[in-house]
Amino acid sequence: MLKQLKEQVLEANLALPRHNLVTFTWGNVSAVDRQQGLIVIKPSGVEYDHMGVDDMVVVELETGKIVEGSKKPSSDTDTHRVLYLSFPQAGGIVHTHSRHATIWAQAGIDIPAWGTTHADYFYGNIPCTRLMTEAEIAGRYEWETGEVIVKTFAERNLDPADIPAVLVHSHGPFAWGKDADNAVHNAVVLEEIAYMGIFSRQLTPQLPDMQPQLLDKHYLRKHGKNAYYGQ
Amino acid sequence: MLKQLKEQVLEANLALPRHNLVTFTWGNVSAVDRQQGLIVIKPSGVEYDHMGVDDMVVVELETGKIVEGSKKPSSDTDTHRVLYLSFPQAGGIVHTHSRHATIWAQAGIDIPAWGTTHADYFYGNIPCTRLMTEAEIAGRYEWETGEVIVKTFAERNLDPADIPAVLVHSHGPFAWGKDADNAVHNAVVLEEIAYMGIFSRQLTPQLPDMQPQLLDKHYLRKHGKNAYYGQ
Amino acid sequence: MLKQLKEQVLEANLALPRHNLVTFTWGNVSAVDRQQGLIVIKPSGVEYDHMGVDDMVVVELETGKIVEGSKKPSSDTDTHRVLYLSFPQAGGIVHTHSRHATIWAQAGIDIPAWGTTHADYFYGNIPCTRLMTEAEIAGRYEWETGEVIVKTFAERNLDPADIPAVLVHSHGPFAWGKDADNAVHNAVVLEEIAYMGIFSRQLTPQLPDMQPQLLDKHYLRKHGKNAYYGQ
Amino acid sequence: MLKQLKEQVLEANLALPRHNLVTFTWGNVSAVDRQQGLIVIKPSGVEYDHMGVDDMVVVELETGKIVEGSKKPSSDTDTHRVLYLSFPQAGGIVHTHSRHATIWAQAGIDIPAWGTTHADYFYGNIPCTRLMTEAEIAGRYEWETGEVIVKTFAERNLDPADIPAVLVHSHGPFAWGKDADNAVHNAVVLEEIAYMGIFSRQLTPQLPDMQPQLLDKHYLRKHGKNAYYGQ
Repeated sequence: MLKQLKEQVLEANLALPRHNLVTFTWGNVSAVDRQQGLIVIKPSGVEYDHMGVDDMVVVELETGKIVEGSKKPSSDTDTHRVLYLSFPQAGGIVHTHSRHATIWAQAGIDIPAWGTTHADYFYGNIPCTRLMTEAEIAGRYEWETGEVIVKTFAERNLDPADIPAVLVHSHGPFAWGKDADNAVHNAVVLEEIAYMGIFSRQLTPQLPDMQPQLLDKHYLRKHGKNAYYGQ
Repeated sequence: MLKQLKEQVLEANLALPRHNLVTFTWGNVSAVDRQQGLIVIKPSGVEYDHMGVDDMVVVELETGKIVEGSKKPSSDTDTHRVLYLSFPQAGGIVHTHSRHATIWAQAGIDIPAWGTTHADYFYGNIPCTRLMTEAEIAGRYEWETGEVIVKTFAERNLDPADIPAVLVHSHGPFAWGKDADNAVHNAVVLEEIAYMGIFSRQLTPQLPDMQPQLLDKHYLRKHGKNAYYGQ
Repeated sequence: MLKQLKEQVLEANLALPRHNLVTFTWGNVSAVDRQQGLIVIKPSGVEYDHMGVDDMVVVELETGKIVEGSKKPSSDTDTHRVLYLSFPQAGGIVHTHSRHATIWAQAGIDIPAWGTTHADYFYGNIPCTRLMTEAEIAGRYEWETGEVIVKTFAERNLDPADIPAVLVHSHGPFAWGKDADNAVHNAVVLEEIAYMGIFSRQLTPQLPDMQPQLLDKHYLRKHGKNAYYGQ
Repeated sequence: MLKQLKEQVLEANLALPRHNLVTFTWGNVSAVDRQQGLIVIKPSGVEYDHMGVDDMVVVELETGKIVEGSKKPSSDTDTHRVLYLSFPQAGGIVHTHSRHATIWAQAGIDIPAWGTTHADYFYGNIPCTRLMTEAEIAGRYEWETGEVIVKTFAERNLDPADIPAVLVHSHGPFAWGKDADNAVHNAVVLEEIAYMGIFSRQLTPQLPDMQPQLLDKHYLRKHGKNAYYGQ
């Protein structure tokens, strides 16, 4: 069942330690099959070294019910589900505690668009969610984590297809993409711009956002119908 | 004698350089067999590359007497002994000079709980001890180092089972756990949150502690009787 | 055609990830054959792991016309062309988004000459260009990027043979040298001094430029007719 | 001639890139045979990958005359000579541009003794020399670099046997030890405390020096006649 998607999800999970995005088991990647309404996701708390394709867990998108797999799915599965249900362009989702993106999340600050590295992938600042309420934390916490992400994009009129990442306040980043591999790609870029942003701000404390014309130029030369980057 | 425990302690010591927690020989791991009242600990000043299971030293918990091993035990053995005698849940103890935890120790500041990475492992701020007195330094220094750690937990009403790490002022971190491997695991997490904390504080200098509800949620979903993380 | 130059350019491109100067495909190296008026350059958006000598693209220096190669040349080809046309000593050019040089570029600040590491390779501060105008961004953007670099050197009376690197504001570094390998060498040094500069400035916020006599001494012991460094 | 010493010096030079202390050829190690009055030192500007035992150069300590070797000795040879002539305990000397020690050198600040990692190896702050005068720079520059180091220790009444390292202002560190290997060891420790010091100072900007009692305790438990660390 979903053999190819499981392999993609396994491969994307194994890419996390290769890109130095995770310590121990602190990260998870999923992908969705929208036609069948199914998610493939990493099992909870299993080490990357010992993970095989059969450890991947298949979960119903609508209900969260496990339909295949002998292990429990990632404890963050409900967050992934909310994002798939609300962000129709997302084919894969990654959650990590990658160091520098997490630093911004802990500081509770958006990552400003400060250069073309950012603009090549994200069409504006990476938003940081508000703090979750006591009720949200005490309730269906992982589901509510997804909800607060979705609300952040809605309230700020951001398009998750153009800004495929978010910082959850006091927690860490989620990133998404057209598939699991692309989601990991965006998570790597996010970590890179998070690192550079910390020290650009150190050098120039009141650094303004980059010019909107330059943001447009770089984002649109790689994305959309007039893109001309790559082969 | 204690063959299995020696192997665990060796393996845990060898994990320190793999996790980039030590330079040269600056670190030591021990484990305790509480029924026999014995500690197994790394020898003093021996390089990790040349360390074998027979280099591990067996010491009496109560007296510090060497009962097996041709080498001198770690010079920090007395600190380990005090911690085992005072913290009944500790099955393994690690001391390192890992870079970022040591930075906080040198600065003489607790590491605040600033995110869920912290909350997943430590149920509150990581305490930094007070400076040691001249008498403590001039006396049984390594034993007194243990005493000042124990007093720190007692005076602040902290439970070492819930906060399995400490910073010794002007020195560096100790971490513990249910066994040697778990102690190393906590030392790795400590180093990670120490790194992230430095730069979260740079981004938001007056950063408040994380919400207590979120601290509870994350700590308790991984620890205690209602834990639901992992397999 | 230009077999040897293609091999040099391929090798120089492959050196970028080895020196940790690039993430994914974010970097490109070219070299010029001035007698034939041809540039060899990396193809656009191709991963380093899968790049071979036949992927290198040959472009006319004067016109930008592709004269050999089945792939599209780097999207930054026009920037390289402007630099070759204006800087006659440049035999090879590198563009990266290397972390610390990019941090200075994003902050919009020159990298001051603060030590002999800098002075061994660069005869003065590394200039950061002004912001590009809306017209420049909306026009032939990559060509204009080269133009703003050339203007920066002209307006400040800098000799690109003595300062073989620049920061493009809000973007990242370009470096050059007598050939592709030397250009990469300079890009590595640039990244190193960019790193050190961030934290030298943190330790001494109003740090003055290094002594001009020391700058002279180090630059001239490695460069020019009285050089005595090396074999 | 001096076969064993050459092997030690080669091995110590090769240890520099393994410990991430050098980029390209930016570092050199020497050792002295005081009975014969000879120094063995790395050749100038030769890459570590291609260095063999026969590339080591033998130089007379008193005169600087090359007595064996087909290559030119390190351009810093005269600095090494001055240090050997003035510091009788030095058996080996290392010069690098290691990142964090160089950051302090560029900032022109001593590295304070801020923790036991420092105290285990250096019996007080690591001094940074004054700026060199124009006459010193214009004269026998490398020799004068040694002289300014020696004067720094003399004027501050520091014992180079107890503080086996220095920062040359606007340049970088030198470290020494009883032999080449020990000198490299001290250079590694210097880099480590340099790193930690930058961020300890960030966390606590007015951080006082560590307690002299603690400095004594740690230095003297590893050095001198009452040492009890190690086997």
